[in-house]
Amino acid sequence: MGSETRSYISLEKNDFVVLFCMMTCLFHYVSCQTENTGMANVISERKAEEDHRQDSADLLIFIMLLTLTILTIWLFKHRRFRFLHETGLAMIYGLLVGVILRFGIHGQQDLNNVTLSCAMNASPATLLVNVSGHFYEYTLKGEVRETDGQDIPDAEMLKKVTFDPEIFFNILLPPIIFHAGYSLKRRHFFRNLGSILTYAFMGTAISCLVIGSLLYGFVAFMKAVGQIHGDFFFTDCLFFGAIISATDPVTVLAIFNELKVDVDLYALLFGESVLNDAVAIILSSSILAYQPAGDNHHTFDASAMLKSVGVFLGVFSGSFALGVVTGVMTSLVTKFTKLREFPLLETALFFLMSWSTFLLAEACGFTGVVAVVFCGMTQAHYTYNNLSDESKDRTKQLFELLNFLAENFIFSYMGLTLFSFQYHVFNPLFILGAFIAVFLGRAANIYPLSFLLNLGRKNKISSNFQHVMMFSGLRGAMAFALAIRDTSTYARRMTFSSTLLIVFFTVWVCGGGTTPMLSFMNIRVGVDSDQDNPLTAGVDGTESRGVRHEGAWPFRMWHSFDHKYLKPFLTHSGPPLTTSLPACCGSLARCLTTTQAYQSEGDPHDEDSELIRNEGMGSPMYTDISISTVTRSSSSSHLYGPTVPSG
Amino acid sequence: MGSETRSYISLEKNDFVVLFCMMTCLFHYVSCQTENTGMANVISERKAEEDHRQDSADLLIFIMLLTLTILTIWLFKHRRFRFLHETGLAMIYGLLVGVILRFGIHGQQDLNNVTLSCAMNASPATLLVNVSGHFYEYTLKGEVRETDGQDIPDAEMLKKVTFDPEIFFNILLPPIIFHAGYSLKRRHFFRNLGSILTYAFMGTAISCLVIGSLLYGFVAFMKAVGQIHGDFFFTDCLFFGAIISATDPVTVLAIFNELKVDVDLYALLFGESVLNDAVAIILSSSILAYQPAGDNHHTFDASAMLKSVGVFLGVFSGSFALGVVTGVMTSLVTKFTKLREFPLLETALFFLMSWSTFLLAEACGFTGVVAVVFCGMTQAHYTYNNLSDESKDRTKQLFELLNFLAENFIFSYMGLTLFSFQYHVFNPLFILGAFIAVFLGRAANIYPLSFLLNLGRKNKISSNFQHVMMFSGLRGAMAFALAIRDTSTYARRMTFSSTLLIVFFTVWVCGGGTTPMLSFMNIRVGVDSDQDNPLTAGVDGTESRGVRHEGAWPFRMWHSFDHKYLKPFLTHSGPPLTTSLPACCGSLARCLTTTQAYQSEGDPHDEDSELIRNEGMGSPMYTDISISTVTRSSSSSHLYGPTVPSG
Repeated sequence: MGSETRSYISLEKNDFVVLFCMMTCLFHYVSCQTENTGMANVISERKAEEDHRQDSADLLIFIMLLTLTILTIWLFKHRRFRFLHETGLAMIYGLLVGVILRFGIHGQQDLNNVTLSCAMNASPATLLVNVSGHFYEYTLKGEVRETDGQDIPDAEMLKKVTFDPEIFFNILLPPIIFHAGYSLKRRHFFRNLGSILTYAFMGTAISCLVIGSLLYGFVAFMKAVGQIHGDFFFTDCLFFGAIISATDPVTVLAIFNELKVDVDLYALLFGESVLNDAVAIILSSSILAYQPAGDNHHTFDASAMLKSVGVFLGVFSGSFALGVVTGVMTSLVTKFTKLREFPLLETALFFLMSWSTFLLAEACGFTGVVAVVFCGMTQAHYTYNNLSDESKDRTKQLFELLNFLAENFIFSYMGLTLFSFQYHVFNPLFILGAFIAVFLGRAANIYPLSFLLNLGRKNKISSNFQHVMMFSGLRGAMAFALAIRDTSTYARRMTFSSTLLIVFFTVWVCGGGTTPMLSFMNIRVGVDSDQDNPLTAGVDGTESRGVRHEGAWPFRMWHSFDHKYLKPFLTHSGPPLTTSLPACCGSLARCLTTTQAYQSEGDPHDEDSELIRNEGMGSPMYTDISISTVTRSSSSSHLYGPTVPSG
Repeated sequence: MGSETRSYISLEKNDFVVLFCMMTCLFHYVSCQTENTGMANVISERKAEEDHRQDSADLLIFIMLLTLTILTIWLFKHRRFRFLHETGLAMIYGLLVGVILRFGIHGQQDLNNVTLSCAMNASPATLLVNVSGHFYEYTLKGEVRETDGQDIPDAEMLKKVTFDPEIFFNILLPPIIFHAGYSLKRRHFFRNLGSILTYAFMGTAISCLVIGSLLYGFVAFMKAVGQIHGDFFFTDCLFFGAIISATDPVTVLAIFNELKVDVDLYALLFGESVLNDAVAIILSSSILAYQPAGDNHHTFDASAMLKSVGVFLGVFSGSFALGVVTGVMTSLVTKFTKLREFPLLETALFFLMSWSTFLLAEACGFTGVVAVVFCGMTQAHYTYNNLSDESKDRTKQLFELLNFLAENFIFSYMGLTLFSFQYHVFNPLFILGAFIAVFLGRAANIYPLSFLLNLGRKNKISSNFQHVMMFSGLRGAMAFALAIRDTSTYARRMTFSSTLLIVFFTVWVCGGGTTPMLSFMNIRVGVDSDQDNPLTAGVDGTESRGVRHEGAWPFRMWHSFDHKYLKPFLTHSGPPLTTSLPACCGSLARCLTTTQAYQSEGDPHDEDSELIRNEGMGSPMYTDISISTVTRSSSSSHLYGPTVPSG
């Protein structure tokens, strides 16, 4: 600071003034815009043009919000404020704009809706309306409930800043989820795979069931005392349990990254959150599949239950397979063509193949977002190794940017929704019950499973770790996107409103409290990656280097198979297939082995690019390649070292 | 090649076999997909879900097409085929898929359209339909002409792969146009600014008028012999002239870049094409503004004409101002914050500010695409200098990728449209007339203007250069996007079909013929940037280094003003404002000058980052910073040299 000129420092002092001015301008603009267009009631074909302008203005609000968020994030980072993460900030700005739109602006009611009462036996997707000889084509937007738009005078205006919820699923979530999968390329993830799978699958199922059951009891009690004014079935409770079980520790992990918290804790939390998003999506759709068998029954139905389980397994395995297959295809294409000579083409191909995973899954009736998780993981594990250095940078930076934009967009939209959404059902008692249920559900996930896992683990998950995992179960983008997808019934609206509040609370309170929590729990920070990382928080100092913590045979087998056959087949690394395959497959093996693989034949060691040797040190040292926001670490990913012997 | 293993070479031999297999798979998939979904006629609320699947499948077709294009481009580049550019290739693949969709697949007719005959006095934007107590919301899609969908049995299926034309304007064109503006940061552009503006503004207007008039005469003749079966007014002719005057030398410039053709020729062609896109858009919308005064008059109306000119000037200056203002705002924000410490935030801000230009312009009723051109140029001229090295790379790469994807998408869509569009009006005589008119229009642009410009230029534009410019007037994405925007009338459909054919012809024939043309015209290739670049093709060898070719006083004044005040105000470079501003503004100047500017105070030279000194040479040498697809040149942009003295 001292080395800067006076003018620069004085400008910094006025940072907040500048921000305030910008906000005032923005809001002024927003209000002008909405009032101007509100007055224009042109019932004609030019309406489409007006709509387009309005859409541009609406989108502009969000772009401005994001810009503002970025500038404020910069200020916070610059001044090392850690109590509020960028997503929390985005929510606050969204909230402010929501308040202004709701209470500050009174646009005129749009009178363009004409109610046609025609005797029709169905609602077709396309409607041709004959207006005095001219035919106009209309497309079905959805069913409208009778209560819609009755309660708030500015319904039309507020409706305009409300996006189609499917946008979240089809545009905003995929890059976030892909980025999570793509940046999950960590040795620690695979080392803790068993525990992560346990938390993500069993844990999420337990959490869903516990929350659903507790809530059902609570709702029954509320019905008894007359606090519930609509239907709320057991499936609704389970659905709530499913969507709220998806954790999103984006805030926590950002802080972990910055403070260099123990990498195993990081891996456990990150791995769990990525996979339980997938589990929550499919769990919630399975519960929906259970429901339509009879709309108002809440008794146990074995066949419907079986159907739900079938849906879960089918959709999950289908999405998993699709994601892995496109990932494998991309790695084959990048291996056997010399596309790496043209980084632009390579990056474009990578992007398109990853996107096509999503589309393919959706077109086949599987879940695109889930397919994208596994595609990202496959791309990171195999394809990434085939890319040119420049493409490695480019793909990481591209998805980092997309992730950043999409995430902040969702969070600022969340803030906006609290006031702009018109059908909120805030039931204080239910919200209280939901908070308690969510807390207990998380506890029922972490503590019993950790106890069971510790029976099998050599490096136990310490109780302090468990408390941090419990505390770090924030809810975020996925819970929101699942909740807003269907807000047609009373139960769903109550679910949505409660989810929104839970997200706000966890992001602000749990996210903001992470740093104090870490110091309170004596979690080691500033760990220079995992130079030595006893899983228990700095107690026993067991030399864990090079030892697979989870030596259960399925993981050993998988690692061996992956190292001997998959990596050599899909990338240029690993032992050439000519040595690992049996002699009878000699010609095939020669076909599939590239020059690069032969060149690295002399080096019998594991070439996972996560494992690098610090050349300055005498002993091998492991560092993680993290997709860092500031420094580029890709150049180091080419220094392999004699690390873990294969198998 | 010789150093590679046998397996690798044999694989390369099979390249085409692999591609063929992939294509077969793709087409098989496409046909399965369309037939499967064609059979599902579920008239219910689940229709929306079906639609979503279908949309995913449709988009997937294009993603697959792009993937295929990328692989084939790679093959071509790898084997140094230059006769077909990637965009031409994308068109061919699109064409093939179009043929298959049109003739290969016979889906069932969608029976969901219900014609409602209701007496209504208007067509509202939203329609509520009462179906036995349930309300369904419908949104207006547009007016349907009586002939629509009657002629082709598979209308519904083909309609599904047809995107809303506004997608081109709102999603695909902006990144292309922004990229063009952003990569226009060249000294040669500014050196030839006068000529470029002349070609772009006067030339496009001349071309539009010439084409319009010729075509009008031709249409009158065709009407006389009974070859025209609908209305075709003078405004339609002028509109055709406007949209077809937008040149898109993407193919030519790619070849120029590769062959290192004379940089002044490059600058002239590139600058003209970027600016005449803007001119063509606004010209066509001005012509539309002229039309509605009376729909079927084709007599001269002075007031409507005046209105058109007013619209042109208003929209152009508004869009220009908006683009420049957001560019300037971005440069101020990047200058006065230390955002450069966080490249992710910086890149995100850059992206959002550039996007908001488009939205702001659209929301204000100006033309987003035009605003984006000037925003891109401003960002390149000022903001780029404030960015961190990593952000410079990131932004260039990001927009390069977006440009690549959008461009190839548009061109493959063009190919598809030739067969999938249902309302083509191919009139052989009219198409012949259009080709002749386009040829003459281009000639009337280039030759007379070059003659006039040569009167004022020190370095004449040689006749060989003129022939190349004439030949390189390809038509591309912009002409297509403008033509497809409105295809409701007979005249517009004929316009669209003819435009499509002209694009195909120019991209394939003129694009493919560029290399022979260059050698035929004796244009120097392999010019090491402009070490010495006499504008006349290697004839006189005048020492042009450091001399402004166009020394007209407006340009000298602009350069001086830009160097003394704008650059120091908006970037860290140039002389500090404390020295250039008068003494009375001392405190203001100190406020606006950053440490970096003081540090570079000792260097009184022009710090345009386009001008770098090659340290190895004794004499200063200029090189261009081009946004190259293969090598990164940004690192060199920091070596300023003592180059052109300011003023």
